[in-house]
Amino acid sequence: MPDRNQLNSVTAFAPATVANVGCGFDVLGFAIHNQGDVITAVRSDQPGVRIAGITGDEGRLPLEAEKNTAGLSVISLLRSIDGPVPGIELSIEKRMPLGSGLGSSACSSVAAVVAVNRLMGTPFSKSELLPFTVEGEMAASGTPHADNVAASLFGGFVLVKSHFPPDVVQLPTPAELYCCIIHPHIEIQTRQSRLILKKDVPLEKAVTQWANVGGLVASLYRDDYELLGRSLHDEIIEPVRSVLIPGFTEMKEAAIDASALGCSISGSGPSVFALCKGEEIARKAGKNMGSILKALGLEYDLHISSINREGASVREES
Amino acid sequence: MPDRNQLNSVTAFAPATVANVGCGFDVLGFAIHNQGDVITAVRSDQPGVRIAGITGDEGRLPLEAEKNTAGLSVISLLRSIDGPVPGIELSIEKRMPLGSGLGSSACSSVAAVVAVNRLMGTPFSKSELLPFTVEGEMAASGTPHADNVAASLFGGFVLVKSHFPPDVVQLPTPAELYCCIIHPHIEIQTRQSRLILKKDVPLEKAVTQWANVGGLVASLYRDDYELLGRSLHDEIIEPVRSVLIPGFTEMKEAAIDASALGCSISGSGPSVFALCKGEEIARKAGKNMGSILKALGLEYDLHISSINREGASVREES
Repeated sequence: MPDRNQLNSVTAFAPATVANVGCGFDVLGFAIHNQGDVITAVRSDQPGVRIAGITGDEGRLPLEAEKNTAGLSVISLLRSIDGPVPGIELSIEKRMPLGSGLGSSACSSVAAVVAVNRLMGTPFSKSELLPFTVEGEMAASGTPHADNVAASLFGGFVLVKSHFPPDVVQLPTPAELYCCIIHPHIEIQTRQSRLILKKDVPLEKAVTQWANVGGLVASLYRDDYELLGRSLHDEIIEPVRSVLIPGFTEMKEAAIDASALGCSISGSGPSVFALCKGEEIARKAGKNMGSILKALGLEYDLHISSINREGASVREES
Repeated sequence: MPDRNQLNSVTAFAPATVANVGCGFDVLGFAIHNQGDVITAVRSDQPGVRIAGITGDEGRLPLEAEKNTAGLSVISLLRSIDGPVPGIELSIEKRMPLGSGLGSSACSSVAAVVAVNRLMGTPFSKSELLPFTVEGEMAASGTPHADNVAASLFGGFVLVKSHFPPDVVQLPTPAELYCCIIHPHIEIQTRQSRLILKKDVPLEKAVTQWANVGGLVASLYRDDYELLGRSLHDEIIEPVRSVLIPGFTEMKEAAIDASALGCSISGSGPSVFALCKGEEIARKAGKNMGSILKALGLEYDLHISSINREGASVREES
């Protein structure tokens, strides 16, 4: 007999994220507002997990649950529940472009487990949900990655000490921090952009990089925007990957000209982000960066957002 | 006519320091108590900087001011003062062994400039003194290094974003943090221990290292001893340098067995440090580590200390 208080449908939102954050390749990430995935999970008489439909993906994402990051994350979650579990039907609404470097697959994983967790009566905390989302991400990138999923799930800035099992530190967010993200309408596959990375790095550059990661983490605790700016440098990954992004160097200069604290590649690109003190500077940086792409004849989207501190959340339930 | 309030003699103490701190090669350091240098600076009718005497160095340090780290730091300081400067005579009392990996030359640089700065009526803040000490350090190691001098000058934990000009972030210190340092009576030259390092490191290990640096910095702000322990790993430098330290692997195991949070090489060695929550664990770790060296037939010193948060200070003036 069904529980009267039992939910039959839950809709959750998971925000898009910027991973790497300059110096923090594979270890840092933060969440933004508005962009992301909305997923509705509905109880079904049919056992197992099914994808009822996907919008906003131009038909490119797999509808088989076992091949879909959202489906795989939910399957992983349900396996961890003792006793019988209901059938689940997922409807995925992508409110962000695929392959933009804003953690599109992570949004699907996170929104799906947050919706299903609520549907099941919240058996897991957010931290407990994290491993399920990392398993879902594996389907997208081939290796376990927790940076985008952790930022999307928890919100704010995260430091990933270990991807699997995930060991994630939630970091504070300076109140006036804004992000400007420009998404040129070209596509880079995460797998491809990993392949071009060099397997070895000079020790000297690695030392600079970990000084910058330490500085960036300290800057978040200190509300120290200048230190944040001095730490937002990537001497290892950005020089290699930025060649895939037309106008990157000029966009970065344009953002810094607009008084952005720093500018680098979001995830594996092609989106480029600039962190700024205050919305006005973020808008100016975005305008400057846009004019570079315009001159190159490239289409783009522009997003201005404060840092999303809430992370994924339930939007509707019935 | 001499100023009546003018000081004629100032004695300052600068504490010994642990640089690198596991994951933070060339970027992290902290100061300890008791070990260090005591330097007395006295006004002299004879122009220029002279070293009047050095004790505790077994006659190994140069008495010519232009070749001595303390002398060079003071010369650098005096050059930054407008107008005529008095002659200075330095007496150096080393209260720590040379070549132990505890920043011996940094102590000399720091104690000397702190004493002379006071003697001159404190024209410079501690931050302003830092570049002079880095110049002094260059004489000892051949390259500018700010990690030991910054920790000795400011106390507590420091993150060095850039060595010269120095960009140093002072980090908080968890209250219950204790350090156990064991100094085997062997000597390693800093220059030698840098030469054996590999010029390139695998990207994968570098990523782990900067995740650990980020984790360690966060742990200090969070008072999170467990995170500190999970971050105190060095997969890049320690495996290479530890071969120069007899019994290192066994000492590290012995420290962890005693519930130390982590254990690694202090600076370029041969001293080995363990960070611990509370004095009791630090004492037990020290005892365990000592028994390893004893079994190898090696003499050693053992120091148990809380973190020195004050840094260098004036001890006497007249």
